[in-house]
Amino acid sequence: MDQQLQIPVKIVVDNFTGTLTRTNKLFDSLTDEELQGEVSPGRNTGIYLLGHLVAAHDHLVTLLGLGDMQYAHFHEAFFKNPDKSGIEFPPVAQLRSDWNTVNETLTAGIATLQPEEWLQRHTAVSEEDFAKEPNRNKLNVLMTRTIHLASHLGQLLFLKKNA
Amino acid sequence: MDQQLQIPVKIVVDNFTGTLTRTNKLFDSLTDEELQGEVSPGRNTGIYLLGHLVAAHDHLVTLLGLGDMQYAHFHEAFFKNPDKSGIEFPPVAQLRSDWNTVNETLTAGIATLQPEEWLQRHTAVSEEDFAKEPNRNKLNVLMTRTIHLASHLGQLLFLKKNA
Repeated sequence: MDQQLQIPVKIVVDNFTGTLTRTNKLFDSLTDEELQGEVSPGRNTGIYLLGHLVAAHDHLVTLLGLGDMQYAHFHEAFFKNPDKSGIEFPPVAQLRSDWNTVNETLTAGIATLQPEEWLQRHTAVSEEDFAKEPNRNKLNVLMTRTIHLASHLGQLLFLKKNA
Repeated sequence: MDQQLQIPVKIVVDNFTGTLTRTNKLFDSLTDEELQGEVSPGRNTGIYLLGHLVAAHDHLVTLLGLGDMQYAHFHEAFFKNPDKSGIEFPPVAQLRSDWNTVNETLTAGIATLQPEEWLQRHTAVSEEDFAKEPNRNKLNVLMTRTIHLASHLGQLLFLKKNA
């Protein structure tokens, strides 16, 4: 195993985990009522963003080859459609629990990947395309999803009253 | 040069550049009036966040060893103090120009760094501490600042009317 590869992989994984920890700390501090609110007037509710993140991380599990999609039904309500589409959302307690479950699957799977495996193609890119663009690998997917999470975390902070 | 190192470095650099491009696209689309608004009621204005990002990227130039701080005076208004502290801000046109200048310095410097240099310590960590924690390197700093930028980009999106 390449010593030089170990450090960049640790950096990306640790930054993902750190961003997730900060997000969970926020979700844990928000009441169900606060989560029902909009992050800014006319924008997404906390509930929608929570479901959206479950769908995104569920997809990430499959992109990293760590398992099958468990929340495919979330993609309709929280990904393909915008907030307030009329599609009924699961109860908040269920969403909170699903968020923890998908991240447990994700972090347990991430811990099993060896540094070299992070440079392998993610499951949504073909072998042909990967040969041309070797940066379309699992490490890249984890970094883009960290950016995605950070972007929504920045928005979710506004749900906290008196913060 | 290590072939395996080239790809992780490219991933982190490309994701930073991509997040910066998205941010610039948004700033370019916002009017000066929109930038004066708050991202959510009672929260930071676009102007403050723009100055805050100039200060952060100015600091990033020094952390990567790419040059000296050029906007030290921004740190008082946009970093040490919150928005609406009473400290007068530079005109919006100046802030926009400073933002472009600091990012030109940053991206030009980043392009000169070889893959191995990204694993060297950043300038705010001592040699002793770096020996114990070799992940406190330039690549890590660039990733944390990408997350920082993404977090504020998510907030700045709310300044856009009818979006």
